[in-house]
Amino acid sequence: MGKGTLLYAQSGGVTAVINATASAVIQAARARKVKVLAARNGILGALREELLDTSRESAADIRALAHTPGGAFGSCRYKLKSLEEDGARYRRLLEVLEAHDVRWFLYNGGNDSADTALKLSRLAEAAGYPLTCVGVPKTVDNDLVATDNCPGFGSAAKYTAVSVAEAALDVAAMADTSTKVFVYEAMGRHAGWLAAAAGLAGRGPDEAPQLILFPERPYDEDDFLRRVRQVVERVGWCLVVASEGIRTPEGRFVADAGGGKDAFGHTQLGGVAPYLAARVKDALGLKVHWTLPDYLQRSARHLASKTDLEQAQAVGRKAVEYALAGMNGVMPVIVRRSQAPYRWTVQPAPLAKIANHEKKMPAGFIRRDGYGITAAARRYLEPLIRGEAPPPYGRDGLPRYVRLKNRQVPKRLPAWEA
Amino acid sequence: MGKGTLLYAQSGGVTAVINATASAVIQAARARKVKVLAARNGILGALREELLDTSRESAADIRALAHTPGGAFGSCRYKLKSLEEDGARYRRLLEVLEAHDVRWFLYNGGNDSADTALKLSRLAEAAGYPLTCVGVPKTVDNDLVATDNCPGFGSAAKYTAVSVAEAALDVAAMADTSTKVFVYEAMGRHAGWLAAAAGLAGRGPDEAPQLILFPERPYDEDDFLRRVRQVVERVGWCLVVASEGIRTPEGRFVADAGGGKDAFGHTQLGGVAPYLAARVKDALGLKVHWTLPDYLQRSARHLASKTDLEQAQAVGRKAVEYALAGMNGVMPVIVRRSQAPYRWTVQPAPLAKIANHEKKMPAGFIRRDGYGITAAARRYLEPLIRGEAPPPYGRDGLPRYVRLKNRQVPKRLPAWEA
Repeated sequence: MGKGTLLYAQSGGVTAVINATASAVIQAARARKVKVLAARNGILGALREELLDTSRESAADIRALAHTPGGAFGSCRYKLKSLEEDGARYRRLLEVLEAHDVRWFLYNGGNDSADTALKLSRLAEAAGYPLTCVGVPKTVDNDLVATDNCPGFGSAAKYTAVSVAEAALDVAAMADTSTKVFVYEAMGRHAGWLAAAAGLAGRGPDEAPQLILFPERPYDEDDFLRRVRQVVERVGWCLVVASEGIRTPEGRFVADAGGGKDAFGHTQLGGVAPYLAARVKDALGLKVHWTLPDYLQRSARHLASKTDLEQAQAVGRKAVEYALAGMNGVMPVIVRRSQAPYRWTVQPAPLAKIANHEKKMPAGFIRRDGYGITAAARRYLEPLIRGEAPPPYGRDGLPRYVRLKNRQVPKRLPAWEA
Repeated sequence: MGKGTLLYAQSGGVTAVINATASAVIQAARARKVKVLAARNGILGALREELLDTSRESAADIRALAHTPGGAFGSCRYKLKSLEEDGARYRRLLEVLEAHDVRWFLYNGGNDSADTALKLSRLAEAAGYPLTCVGVPKTVDNDLVATDNCPGFGSAAKYTAVSVAEAALDVAAMADTSTKVFVYEAMGRHAGWLAAAAGLAGRGPDEAPQLILFPERPYDEDDFLRRVRQVVERVGWCLVVASEGIRTPEGRFVADAGGGKDAFGHTQLGGVAPYLAARVKDALGLKVHWTLPDYLQRSARHLASKTDLEQAQAVGRKAVEYALAGMNGVMPVIVRRSQAPYRWTVQPAPLAKIANHEKKMPAGFIRRDGYGITAAARRYLEPLIRGEAPPPYGRDGLPRYVRLKNRQVPKRLPAWEA
């Protein structure tokens, strides 16, 4: 390959394996002698012309990216609107790409990034600028359509299932004289994918998590508390997994119930887990503990799923392949070829089918009583957490996570204000 | 060996490696043909005559205990008072031990259990019953005197340092448009050992955690908020680690500040992390996130420290050796023989020196400004998190944690009510 540069950008919340995708992108491009720039802080870096020269990074450091969580070039929460509303921004993007001879743009994110990549490709086409835009899937939320699952989800799912299994052993050992109810809050504002993954930790109604609260089901406090009491009576203790997105029958987020301002006007931060724990304490008089892992669940590269890692790398490689083949407006997606043995492959899907759509959890994945997962959910989820891919550790007992040089290339355009 | 039984009991909060101690105890006793009973739910099981026959467990299951978190026989929070106040309970204990021909009692716990073991041994001596009592150290709090460190602490410390390092990469990647301040709440009601371990995640004032709040220092809100602002201005984001035990200058736990009852009489659960996060949001207007790992930090066997695991096993083996040698009223403790290379050994210490004492963190471990650890702390802590000892994983992507049969031996005494 001769002329032309590939620009790679990360978007939205980072995951344990988004850097593994970046690593695969850069390695695949290097193998084809294509120069790769990375936008600092996602699309904002492209707008600000803050472009990082990945050719300054050693081969060893690019390999090490595959076991480093976070977002090595920075990511951002910044959604471009329609071409009409955000025309100036799209035009600026195109100017920056043109100034750096970018012919291939890879945008690694979720629905929104698929949308942005698609719009940019249309604008380039209209402007007669030869640009191939490829979306690359990533999200712990697992909410992209057209793909069987999203890179990033499997590792967060593994973290969730393992953490719940471990906490359950702790609670079971102490329940006689200490904590009887433990509440684990899982990410998932709109869909209960991660809460469902917790269900992999146990089998049968007496194994933890005995109760899962999904955002797909309205939160019925009386019914929930009755069930907690029943489980404690039967098992001796109860582990509850609650999705951060559960809502009351009136549609209000339960997480907001504990929040607001106190009498002094001070903010009280909400949270589903502390709210539920307090209700259990008040209504049932049981000793409760709760956990809110928050970012730990999406950055736990030390507990990544090997399946997830391999898929994250595969979509990165395929994205480069598609881009260099001029396949514009597509995303490499994961297709489940067979269930047992689990086999998957990567194929292109049109961004137009992915942008702005959200995959919900199938109704058949939630148990009829609303508090657990079905065998179908287990079949779907289990292969995604399979296999371990631990990072190398140093003599100091810590994972050897890499920090890149991230040298910026000189700007060629006037400064730009967002 | 011929006659006589060894009774093993777990006490207080469980850890990632207390079962590794149990595993070593049972293996060492089996090698000497000594029968081992385990008390169900700690000392309560001994009082209730709920004794589990470990000879019913396979050698493979006992080996697997070494990689299984929680407390395999159950533990409890139950403190026996003085011989005067709790005479009936001590006498009942002795009756149960005598009824099952228990000649060696191993109590695996912290200060309180050392105290109980000591009192029991004195009572037995006064009663002319031949009983050797040995304490076995265990606590994530690392607060036992006479030992360089406590089994259980190293793994929780490794969990803390790794989790903070991973969360820091996440926050750093997103700070431009998302979370600027992240608060991690570490266990440690009285001493900041685990908060200090978080300090291993970074070096220098700009690496996470940039601010650590220790229970050893009064919490000064204005000073804290000023420092958060300074770090955000300098670094772009700030990771705060706060010990659950921090207090105001007046001595009130900060964790209680957010708690209490709301206007409807509903309990609001407190927590240091959500409280600090809310203050940062109110005072500095910065986007905050927070995590409270709670039991996850002490049950994360998947991330155990190899040093910790080896020490947990070593104290178990030595406890059996001391007991069978008739060394009454001692505890095997860890002695640091050399710093570089790190070398340790186990030796007996009298329970009388350990019972009811609490090891504080040395003042020289906290940085002069109060918000970080010193080089001395790093030298002490770092070997304790060294090495990895992951559990085996199944085809389902989950660790293969063992569940014992826990068959109870027939009771020989009338029932007893606590």
